[in-house]
Amino acid sequence: MAAPPDLAHIHHAELLTTKPAESLRFFVDVLGMEIESQAGESVYLRGWGDSQRYSLKLTESAQTGLGHVALRAWNEDALQRVVRDIEASGRGEGWIDGELGHGPAYRFTDPDGHVFEVLYEAERYDPPSELAPSLKNQPQRYTGRGVGVKRLDHINLLAADVRAVREFATDVLGYRLYERVELDDGSEAGAWMSLSVMAHELIYTRDHHGANGRLHHLAFWVDTREECLRAADLFLDHDVYIEAAPSKHAIAQGFFLYAYEPAGNRIEVTTGGRLVYDPDEPTVVWTQAERAKGQAWGVKTIESFHTYGTPPVDPSTTLE
Amino acid sequence: MAAPPDLAHIHHAELLTTKPAESLRFFVDVLGMEIESQAGESVYLRGWGDSQRYSLKLTESAQTGLGHVALRAWNEDALQRVVRDIEASGRGEGWIDGELGHGPAYRFTDPDGHVFEVLYEAERYDPPSELAPSLKNQPQRYTGRGVGVKRLDHINLLAADVRAVREFATDVLGYRLYERVELDDGSEAGAWMSLSVMAHELIYTRDHHGANGRLHHLAFWVDTREECLRAADLFLDHDVYIEAAPSKHAIAQGFFLYAYEPAGNRIEVTTGGRLVYDPDEPTVVWTQAERAKGQAWGVKTIESFHTYGTPPVDPSTTLE
Amino acid sequence: MAAPPDLAHIHHAELLTTKPAESLRFFVDVLGMEIESQAGESVYLRGWGDSQRYSLKLTESAQTGLGHVALRAWNEDALQRVVRDIEASGRGEGWIDGELGHGPAYRFTDPDGHVFEVLYEAERYDPPSELAPSLKNQPQRYTGRGVGVKRLDHINLLAADVRAVREFATDVLGYRLYERVELDDGSEAGAWMSLSVMAHELIYTRDHHGANGRLHHLAFWVDTREECLRAADLFLDHDVYIEAAPSKHAIAQGFFLYAYEPAGNRIEVTTGGRLVYDPDEPTVVWTQAERAKGQAWGVKTIESFHTYGTPPVDPSTTLE
Amino acid sequence: MAAPPDLAHIHHAELLTTKPAESLRFFVDVLGMEIESQAGESVYLRGWGDSQRYSLKLTESAQTGLGHVALRAWNEDALQRVVRDIEASGRGEGWIDGELGHGPAYRFTDPDGHVFEVLYEAERYDPPSELAPSLKNQPQRYTGRGVGVKRLDHINLLAADVRAVREFATDVLGYRLYERVELDDGSEAGAWMSLSVMAHELIYTRDHHGANGRLHHLAFWVDTREECLRAADLFLDHDVYIEAAPSKHAIAQGFFLYAYEPAGNRIEVTTGGRLVYDPDEPTVVWTQAERAKGQAWGVKTIESFHTYGTPPVDPSTTLE
Repeated sequence: MAAPPDLAHIHHAELLTTKPAESLRFFVDVLGMEIESQAGESVYLRGWGDSQRYSLKLTESAQTGLGHVALRAWNEDALQRVVRDIEASGRGEGWIDGELGHGPAYRFTDPDGHVFEVLYEAERYDPPSELAPSLKNQPQRYTGRGVGVKRLDHINLLAADVRAVREFATDVLGYRLYERVELDDGSEAGAWMSLSVMAHELIYTRDHHGANGRLHHLAFWVDTREECLRAADLFLDHDVYIEAAPSKHAIAQGFFLYAYEPAGNRIEVTTGGRLVYDPDEPTVVWTQAERAKGQAWGVKTIESFHTYGTPPVDPSTTLE
Repeated sequence: MAAPPDLAHIHHAELLTTKPAESLRFFVDVLGMEIESQAGESVYLRGWGDSQRYSLKLTESAQTGLGHVALRAWNEDALQRVVRDIEASGRGEGWIDGELGHGPAYRFTDPDGHVFEVLYEAERYDPPSELAPSLKNQPQRYTGRGVGVKRLDHINLLAADVRAVREFATDVLGYRLYERVELDDGSEAGAWMSLSVMAHELIYTRDHHGANGRLHHLAFWVDTREECLRAADLFLDHDVYIEAAPSKHAIAQGFFLYAYEPAGNRIEVTTGGRLVYDPDEPTVVWTQAERAKGQAWGVKTIESFHTYGTPPVDPSTTLE
Repeated sequence: MAAPPDLAHIHHAELLTTKPAESLRFFVDVLGMEIESQAGESVYLRGWGDSQRYSLKLTESAQTGLGHVALRAWNEDALQRVVRDIEASGRGEGWIDGELGHGPAYRFTDPDGHVFEVLYEAERYDPPSELAPSLKNQPQRYTGRGVGVKRLDHINLLAADVRAVREFATDVLGYRLYERVELDDGSEAGAWMSLSVMAHELIYTRDHHGANGRLHHLAFWVDTREECLRAADLFLDHDVYIEAAPSKHAIAQGFFLYAYEPAGNRIEVTTGGRLVYDPDEPTVVWTQAERAKGQAWGVKTIESFHTYGTPPVDPSTTLE
Repeated sequence: MAAPPDLAHIHHAELLTTKPAESLRFFVDVLGMEIESQAGESVYLRGWGDSQRYSLKLTESAQTGLGHVALRAWNEDALQRVVRDIEASGRGEGWIDGELGHGPAYRFTDPDGHVFEVLYEAERYDPPSELAPSLKNQPQRYTGRGVGVKRLDHINLLAADVRAVREFATDVLGYRLYERVELDDGSEAGAWMSLSVMAHELIYTRDHHGANGRLHHLAFWVDTREECLRAADLFLDHDVYIEAAPSKHAIAQGFFLYAYEPAGNRIEVTTGGRLVYDPDEPTVVWTQAERAKGQAWGVKTIESFHTYGTPPVDPSTTLE
């Protein structure tokens, strides 16, 4: 029986960078995010439409990839229910004190080893006067700098065993499964999941190298397809590597633009995507042949999209 | 303590028309909807993105306005909880057999007299071959006829006492209240409510004439602002009366185009609007002075937008 | 010394089809053109923004490809000057009586054998009442059917010797040469020419098979990139083969969508492109390496774009 | 007999400001123009798509309004022909030495007293390395700062006697007259003229106060309607006064957004507009009743649009 999830939304993601200065310039000058705070090796960044203080924690590190993902529950009771289920799964690691912008969080890993946190208490953004918006239903002034991403939209994680992680996400975390890819051999190549009517908030795709804990991409929202096209012009004239030019996905029907930030993490600028209102929406299952057709309008998916992730894999330790 | 609503989405709205042939031509040829079925005095219509069989029931009647609104619960238990609360409110009218496309429904009225139904069992749309889509995550082929509205998006009802109806909607039906207008005298002029992250699904605005049970407008979704602009060109060359040209609302930040269908009911073509992920999102309260500023970019709201609704009021029976 | 050309615009192109009924349905139902007239084996078609009676003559034929292109001069004197230069070039074939919609025309071939006509006298479109527009500065009502192309925008012809045809176009016909591709061996692979500030109206690209007189594509204009994206959705759900999904050209910077009409002729839906106001604008010369980078945002050009044209070549008679 | 004009394009316009620092910040930070040079009381500014060194000369002055407009001829002979005709009209003032970015110019006034120059020799823009573009057919890198206007598009001047100035523009300067407004009393209220296929490059509208030499607005081009909508969001959050929110003109069908720069000069962000390829395009004449209908989609024209210009008029010296 379908029911609304106990989790409400992604609070933030932590991205690791080996080139902190260059990465920061990318997120601030090219994507147009604001620096909300800095502490230790981390800079906390926000889009102009993020309701919370930040949605991206950018941390200097010896390697690239995902630090962790923090998910926020609807309320304190919902948080306790989710924590109980995580503990029952055996993947729990325990409570940690909150950090900047949020309260206590329970830490755990998914079956592929990605680090997650769940939390409820969080601080809404309160803009300084120079960033105060004209419209009071908007968290922050629209500065118009660079791409001007609005907020962190979704996260795509690589996993050696997609079935295992997506079952964890649906059965333990309560995500709704909207679409998935099942190959001819019965294995799963990808799963698109959400906590809301939006087409996807958490995606798992198969790690081509069989490695664990890697990141496919972080996706940042803009309100229009034209802003994705404009972002491509900006990337072109700011020497940002464009991996896949703007087009429309078949799966989920989102509009995309993929690029690599200076340290090599893949970033998406996204908008659109179908809306799922039906509580009983059946999961769409795409076959290997259907996926091979490429994107919605026939664009063949570039090879690196299926093979590249961060951190890079050491060829000597992987299957391929 | 914030919690996800037991209701999931609007299933359909029934619109009454005194000019059934002309209205039908408008919805089919100009808005681009499909006729899913016909029965008695009613035609059941759908947008290409509606997951259910239909979202609009167009019914010949002696007067214009709203027939009823049908809301769908997340599951059977959620439906029973909602019905229990409606009965407790004293506004329940009892169960009715389902009609085309959905199962048993419980009928009630809001405090302003608009007729509602709540239901859970509903049939998903299964397209005939000529309307089968290319992408399997899309309910129906995109025909491209006319405006090509995707689905019914939201409903705006007029009410003599906005505070009473919005309290009913939030306290009994479980709607989340995202924005409202409070005039200098403390009375309420409008309330924008939702069951999801979308900026609004049910809106109440004050009936200028103090009448009851009237309709402000039905809003149909398109995916892009450019489709709203294109719709304006289509309306212009199809002799559809444009009440308000495309622009951006301050409240909810949706992009709009308002027109009257041939029988006089107001129709909106809409897209955009802010997304509300925070479970604890505070309600934005707009003052009389703020509302007087007009829309987001300073467009003054046309007078008829505040005074016109369907059915028309008999001046002899109203306050003004 | 730069001077404005004596020719003003493309009057129409004749396209040959081996599947006249299917091709006609494509141009009318999918591209949204209007049938202005029919005579013999030909149908005369127009976009809603064409000022002349028609811009496309669709003719049943034993093979696909281009029938002819008709160019219109600024005035009678300009026409005589152009005809004099054509005659001097030795490629003239003589005057023919006008046909539907235009007066006397002088027929000639370019050095690759494509058939051209030049003319001056032409009839402006006078819409029947059902196609009368709301705005008097618009030739025809915007019906909104299908893609809704506005007018024929430009023509791309294949040629075995690009240098020869582009020199004919610039030196004899007076076209302005805005961009061209020169390969490492000094040969030319393409030339983008115009009579106006628009980025291109006549393009020649190298015939990969060394054949003569073939067509690369006819391009139809829409006013916005969003209409190109929408056209891709329409093509997808109308079983039209998409050769290249919407993206932005590096050369001329136009936005494109390429597809094959049912008989196999390549059709482009286009918008944008840089505007050239400087009378002394230097010709941009792209190298082989630059062209190999693909389109503006890095999309690699699909192989068939360089090899496919109509009519198809008989492999036994070509170099490759 | 229609013939192409001897003038090719607007080279630049000089705008006078009483608040040079604030105006400069507006053009650089909000509109996103680049400072190409500075000299004396003037700053020379360019859009990223301007082929010449600059298109706007911003000059500190005791009052706002237009300094002068400089028009560029196709070649030296064309320039001499235009100068000869200006001299014959009796409005010539003589040659001046070129200034930054262009050669000798002939100065004159239109019958309303606006100062014009015609010239031919001009320097193309050569970007410094930090502004070098990725695509070689683009004059400058796309920085993405603010609105990011591409180039100066057109100029609208107020005139006490519209008929006199538009006859001067067509008969002496060679402009093509595409549309005009004729009031019921036979007087003219506006004229839309061009040197190219673009819908308008020089516009005259009636000075409501009967004053002379005033400016209605300078219009800057963006490539898409979405950029106009985005500009409105930027203006809103940068405290720029929006006089008229984005919508579509009936006359010329351009998409518009009108605002006042800090010193009070009206600025338009524009795109679209019909294209005029027919050499014999008849002038569209709009009646008083037609103009009163407002813009294309029914937006009523704001009163100040008909009455406000720069410099402001001294009420004691005008008719009204």
